[in-house]
Amino acid sequence: MNQTDLGDSVIFPLGEQLGSEHFSGAAWLEMLTPADSACPIGNVTFAPGCRNNWHSHPGGQVLLVTGGRGWYQQWGQPARELRPGDVVEIPPDAKHWHGAARDSRFSHLAVMVDPAKGPAAWLEPVADADYDSLK
Amino acid sequence: MNQTDLGDSVIFPLGEQLGSEHFSGAAWLEMLTPADSACPIGNVTFAPGCRNNWHSHPGGQVLLVTGGRGWYQQWGQPARELRPGDVVEIPPDAKHWHGAARDSRFSHLAVMVDPAKGPAAWLEPVADADYDSLK
Repeated sequence: MNQTDLGDSVIFPLGEQLGSEHFSGAAWLEMLTPADSACPIGNVTFAPGCRNNWHSHPGGQVLLVTGGRGWYQQWGQPARELRPGDVVEIPPDAKHWHGAARDSRFSHLAVMVDPAKGPAAWLEPVADADYDSLK
Repeated sequence: MNQTDLGDSVIFPLGEQLGSEHFSGAAWLEMLTPADSACPIGNVTFAPGCRNNWHSHPGGQVLLVTGGRGWYQQWGQPARELRPGDVVEIPPDAKHWHGAARDSRFSHLAVMVDPAKGPAAWLEPVADADYDSLK
């Protein structure tokens, strides 16, 4: 598998392209368990350069990286480069974003923690200058 | 990747070999998030022929199959063959087992649902005649 040009997603289905105002470009989502279940799990794939806006989850979220290269950043901290096999535990209510590197697609599983606490709170886009500074 | 002879696990670390009386043979576990966290996730790899005993989870569990060929069976139902990309939602308190096919290693991520409800309840081994009847 060419990690910088995933023709599809990794292991799990690519799903449908998102038409979300909270993403800077093309991204795809396949829900692996129902969104209204006790443990919603989605397979998310970002096109190169695509990232989501700053946001937070009342119950937290776990990311399991399956393909490509990407970034995770929590507000006030340096961005963390992500590769297949990396795991991110996002604390409840922590303001953060995630997405692909400029030159690579990026796929991760996203496990919602304690979904009864409510949906994501969406905030402002990541500043272009901040994203563009990432190598 | 040769799906019938995974030299390692898939994407995530193989982890440590389990010394569990609840498994019929060799299996490996890497916890991807802490066992005492709000969302414990383990990467489980079974040697060919290895399966766990019948058991249940008070909060349920989700299996995300990443490699090889294996089986899932819920009490009173036919066994379901599992391949990479398959997802199993195990209801709370449902008596079940999972494990590898006779001729293949088998890897899945196991996501504990609602872990505050308590640990797995372990029961009797899967009858050899029942396992041996699976193709």
